[in-house]
Amino acid sequence: MTESDNHDWLAERALRSPDMPGLIFGGRTWTFAALHAAAVEIADGLRDAGVDPGIGSGDRVALLAGNRPATVQAIHAVPRLGATLVPLNLRLTDDELAFQIGVASPRMLLADAANQEQAERVAAECRVPLRLLEDLQNGSDASMDAVAPVSIASDHLHTIMFTSGTTGQPKGAMLTAGNHLASAVASMLNLGVERDDRWLCCVPLFHMAGLSIVIRSAVSGFPLLLHEGFDPNQVSAAIEDDGVTIVSLVPQMLQRLLEARTKANVDSPFPDAFRCALTGGGPVPKPLLDRCAAIGAPVAQTYGLTETASQVVTLAPGEALLHLGAAGKPLWGSRIRLRQDGADVPAGEAGEIQVQGPTVMSGYFQNSEATAAAFEQDAATPGRWLRSGDIGYLDDDGYLHVLDRRTDLIISGGENVYPAEVEAVLLAHPDVAEAAVVGVPNAEWGERPVAFVVVVGEASDGEALAAFVARGLAGFKRPERFVFVPTLPRTAAGKIQRHRLREQAAEFGERT
Amino acid sequence: MTESDNHDWLAERALRSPDMPGLIFGGRTWTFAALHAAAVEIADGLRDAGVDPGIGSGDRVALLAGNRPATVQAIHAVPRLGATLVPLNLRLTDDELAFQIGVASPRMLLADAANQEQAERVAAECRVPLRLLEDLQNGSDASMDAVAPVSIASDHLHTIMFTSGTTGQPKGAMLTAGNHLASAVASMLNLGVERDDRWLCCVPLFHMAGLSIVIRSAVSGFPLLLHEGFDPNQVSAAIEDDGVTIVSLVPQMLQRLLEARTKANVDSPFPDAFRCALTGGGPVPKPLLDRCAAIGAPVAQTYGLTETASQVVTLAPGEALLHLGAAGKPLWGSRIRLRQDGADVPAGEAGEIQVQGPTVMSGYFQNSEATAAAFEQDAATPGRWLRSGDIGYLDDDGYLHVLDRRTDLIISGGENVYPAEVEAVLLAHPDVAEAAVVGVPNAEWGERPVAFVVVVGEASDGEALAAFVARGLAGFKRPERFVFVPTLPRTAAGKIQRHRLREQAAEFGERT
Repeated sequence: MTESDNHDWLAERALRSPDMPGLIFGGRTWTFAALHAAAVEIADGLRDAGVDPGIGSGDRVALLAGNRPATVQAIHAVPRLGATLVPLNLRLTDDELAFQIGVASPRMLLADAANQEQAERVAAECRVPLRLLEDLQNGSDASMDAVAPVSIASDHLHTIMFTSGTTGQPKGAMLTAGNHLASAVASMLNLGVERDDRWLCCVPLFHMAGLSIVIRSAVSGFPLLLHEGFDPNQVSAAIEDDGVTIVSLVPQMLQRLLEARTKANVDSPFPDAFRCALTGGGPVPKPLLDRCAAIGAPVAQTYGLTETASQVVTLAPGEALLHLGAAGKPLWGSRIRLRQDGADVPAGEAGEIQVQGPTVMSGYFQNSEATAAAFEQDAATPGRWLRSGDIGYLDDDGYLHVLDRRTDLIISGGENVYPAEVEAVLLAHPDVAEAAVVGVPNAEWGERPVAFVVVVGEASDGEALAAFVARGLAGFKRPERFVFVPTLPRTAAGKIQRHRLREQAAEFGERT
Repeated sequence: MTESDNHDWLAERALRSPDMPGLIFGGRTWTFAALHAAAVEIADGLRDAGVDPGIGSGDRVALLAGNRPATVQAIHAVPRLGATLVPLNLRLTDDELAFQIGVASPRMLLADAANQEQAERVAAECRVPLRLLEDLQNGSDASMDAVAPVSIASDHLHTIMFTSGTTGQPKGAMLTAGNHLASAVASMLNLGVERDDRWLCCVPLFHMAGLSIVIRSAVSGFPLLLHEGFDPNQVSAAIEDDGVTIVSLVPQMLQRLLEARTKANVDSPFPDAFRCALTGGGPVPKPLLDRCAAIGAPVAQTYGLTETASQVVTLAPGEALLHLGAAGKPLWGSRIRLRQDGADVPAGEAGEIQVQGPTVMSGYFQNSEATAAAFEQDAATPGRWLRSGDIGYLDDDGYLHVLDRRTDLIISGGENVYPAEVEAVLLAHPDVAEAAVVGVPNAEWGERPVAFVVVVGEASDGEALAAFVARGLAGFKRPERFVFVPTLPRTAAGKIQRHRLREQAAEFGERT
């Protein structure tokens, strides 16, 4: 907020609503007071964690931990110390983690016991001290009385979250406390806050989709129901029995949820109290939307980026059926424009989606080149505009339709796979002369990557390449097949014609 | 929000929810798009209102207008031009208005036709151009298409709202756009935003209680149901028939509302959908709270100031019965402390209520002396703390209990009457040597002022004094009786013992 510091959101909420449920996991409930006390305990542990001089202002803390209560508590604990959170994707290989840790240069790697083995390997390689979340919890019942709220400035660097890009090199998007707060408030101004709201988080806390639920819960004061992962039957049961009113999903999860309910013969589509499946992280296929419309499932499409602290454009609940296929209108405070060749395009015409507003990141950590490339400035419309790289258009009513997530981007189960990143790994193999990776439709995952490879000298085989990329790429990024071709189709200017490769890959059908 | 401009709240809302009802008055509904179009029309009118060079950035516009749609539209129109709104109290005398206009030095006095006569007199006296709201409305249907949102910075001086003080001299509290936004968001974080919310405004738009509803409505996107004034039967009917879910009241209005409902034999206390009577502007008498508790009326007590853009401390809905008599906990982002002799007092002990946070005014307009006196700074707790002058204590659960609105303050029907202001007028009479004004309980108005007067020479009579003060004081400030005494009771140090006068005045009973 203006002219004032932000405060520790959870402390603020715990002061105001101590006895209200804040977190529910595995049948156990933490009130906001208990959740805050646990976060303070972790913060105290981080302060004297055997790392001289302990975690303090300006430090970065990398976090390799699953969807469990201690992770939620750590998310609140780190900014309390004036430090910056660096959430790490649990699906990455050691090499990928080491790269991100190398860029972020955290004072500590914090992990949970479930990820201890990988954490130990990576910590040793990166020579960064490792602490386990479980060791920071002494089980004492910290009292609210002793816990004064901590002042956190709006421009405090709250999070560095890595996201890959067209260059293939993961970049650390820097999000301030003010970015997150603006996003939480804007989300609330769109969805409202109902008395009985309960938000189910079955997406990873290391992604913005999950992290943003933790922050919204503290800011708006509704309980977060945490699942360790996505299980369609458990999600369905939570909606039926646990009073879930909102759930964040990627389209493939929504699809699987509907299928699970059909299989289980759940008669009424959703309970009346369930008011929103906030669905983003990729385009929602039209047949899926039609199906939701047919059974009256309340879906709110959303379009957002890691670089904008989650949602930018969201359909209001109840608008989905009126504006089928649209991602919605910009949330409160955000602006979008559609650009081509340095000029706005008129309604109905496709252009790059650019974003301006209080949720837009300050830049990429230690990467001024990528930061400069991420923004467009022009004299006519003042301010910095974030270039999403995604293509869309505005309809006559001002609703955004997303045509293509960033050029060539492959979205597999809600995870972004950047062809350039996969190609870079392939090209590191001595036998590979050229490589092009494209996405092919997949019923379960939305898309899966397929690699087209031109080899030099003796023909290489797919299995050898698969083993090679497995060392450097997380599972979801690995091509599901390798197609060996004599040349790659190129334009006259030499640009790879990816659409032709996509057509060719699709003809193969899915590997099932 | 941080690192970003605020935008025109109504434009923002109209872009996002054009077809949602935004304002309801006299059976007519304006969608947010229509409301915004009407506001733009008034803004355009102000820009070329025959005042060379028209209203623009940095100008002040004084507004003398009742609770009508054009007033709501003007409230949104003025900041759109980069100008500052100076709402004037319709109950003031010409002299009182002239004083405030003299301080604010607006470029224009804007009035509605109902207040034209007084506006003409005051405008002539102050030599300020007068325009009628009705003349700015050309009735054209401005289209949203042509209307780009206007960027309004967080530190834009949105409002100068006059409030009297212990000195008796009205002071213009300066509220920025950021102050108002922070207040609207904090209110929403306490009360939530339900799908069917509809907020009844039957308090004056020239007070913070009314103005803040206009801003919340645009920010949160719920319809404002506007009444021209407070009529208990109409309020009751609106709650029964018009879907009102929240209403802002002063305690005396709440009392009269309950009485009206009893008289009308309204069986069920309130419809289920009605969720909150936000009651502030003075202490809520315990018997009234007991009565609300008995019939299950959902009352949320609140404590706020003009200087804090309305609510600072509010009970959450549903807490009223658990914390009977408490005003609540600080809203999100705000801090309070209880001070005596430059130090915090422990829980349970009385002290001056001081406030810090994003809603606190920047100061009093053109009055650096009063601004300096309004804030306390101390080394131990950084930042400026607004001195409310009100006395209260924190209970063991951290709930604020307000014991006394500012020392000696009289609250009559929700309007603040400062004894010093009334005494100053009395002392201007040649026959009055000393004067002391205190409040006496009154069933209808909460309190009414009574004057104790020491005359010089020949005895003056009450009627003559009444006629004298009527020229300089609004009706609600005028003493309901004059008590002639040979001397005023004073302490050894010479300070008037107001509590003794209050006791004496109360013994007379009420004039009925």
